[in-house]
Amino acid sequence: MVVKLFGSPVSTCTARVMLCMEEIGLQYELVPVDLKAGEHQRPPHSDRNPFCQIPALQDGGLVLFESRVITRYLVQKYGKGTYLLKQKSFVDTVAVDQWMEVETQHFNGPISAIVFQHVFLPLLFGGHTDQNVVLLDLDKLGKVLDVYEARLSKTKFLAGDFYSLADLHHLPYGYHLINNTPHGSLINSRPHVKAWWDAITSRQGSKKVLAAMASTS
Amino acid sequence: MVVKLFGSPVSTCTARVMLCMEEIGLQYELVPVDLKAGEHQRPPHSDRNPFCQIPALQDGGLVLFESRVITRYLVQKYGKGTYLLKQKSFVDTVAVDQWMEVETQHFNGPISAIVFQHVFLPLLFGGHTDQNVVLLDLDKLGKVLDVYEARLSKTKFLAGDFYSLADLHHLPYGYHLINNTPHGSLINSRPHVKAWWDAITSRQGSKKVLAAMASTS
Repeated sequence: MVVKLFGSPVSTCTARVMLCMEEIGLQYELVPVDLKAGEHQRPPHSDRNPFCQIPALQDGGLVLFESRVITRYLVQKYGKGTYLLKQKSFVDTVAVDQWMEVETQHFNGPISAIVFQHVFLPLLFGGHTDQNVVLLDLDKLGKVLDVYEARLSKTKFLAGDFYSLADLHHLPYGYHLINNTPHGSLINSRPHVKAWWDAITSRQGSKKVLAAMASTS
Repeated sequence: MVVKLFGSPVSTCTARVMLCMEEIGLQYELVPVDLKAGEHQRPPHSDRNPFCQIPALQDGGLVLFESRVITRYLVQKYGKGTYLLKQKSFVDTVAVDQWMEVETQHFNGPISAIVFQHVFLPLLFGGHTDQNVVLLDLDKLGKVLDVYEARLSKTKFLAGDFYSLADLHHLPYGYHLINNTPHGSLINSRPHVKAWWDAITSRQGSKKVLAAMASTS
């Protein structure tokens, strides 16, 4: 039975899971959830995710939500040979957890606010970018990326010299920041962050999913 | 060599790690970091955590930050017999990940904002509670706890009929909500959430750390 992903490539969190599936070479069926029609807020989708967000995953009788839980699950079940999560050494595995959590706690907040203001607010809600909100979050994101610049001057990827979920989780919002806002210089002006960004976006699976995102935004 | 935890029990994130250490019976040294003196913002602490927050953990040559990364590490390394993280079945292990992420993505935001307004803003910064901010987050937290009420009507704990990190991670902010804000009814008025709360706060390790929190706030 093919794994089903309920969502849309316009959603950064759906794209995060698609990136993981491409990376581990997993066949899946993308089942569209129509956000504009409010399908995410009623059954059957609200039975899959009680918080009424996309994506959700169905694998046989198991249903999961939250993109970062789904990627962790998929790598554990289907991506054992990939070293996206569990490394050969425990210390390296812990480093993946460390930088996955940095993405969640520090990177995601400001970058999602900036991308919402520049991309989703006009695209989905017909609203206008609030520059005051953006300014505050640009400052926050810049400070986070200063930490990344220091880290990436020592290691090729965030958790070490290997590509992992800690890197992959950054792709959807980073893609929008560079391609659909005027603030791509936050990444491009920091040489080690830029080299990392080039490395993680040039992977085969990344290119395929980022192209699918481009066609929807 | 004893594991060192750099932080303070006044910090909810430090308390989260202490709760985990008590639960797995791990001896540790709590090394105070003086927030009022700004010790967290300069070396050596800023070398331990480039985001200049507490807590940080030192275990031999390994240094980690972010409380939820530290608890995951400690259970993997020192708590294998406890089933706080990895369960006997893979599906149950995934359920722990699922509800740990719910705490991070849905519970932590509104409850930390409410507790900041009622506890840390007056205590650490001499400020006054902004009722407008609180109202918005009370509404958000109520909706999250409605999902918890439905979940906990089916299972004794969040991930299943077993206590895990998914429950433990809620303790520090839940403690403040009930004891140091006028909004404890958000938990106490929902019967299954209340029964869960009584169960997780009455554990030996919980009582010890919550008492340490009480003595600092």
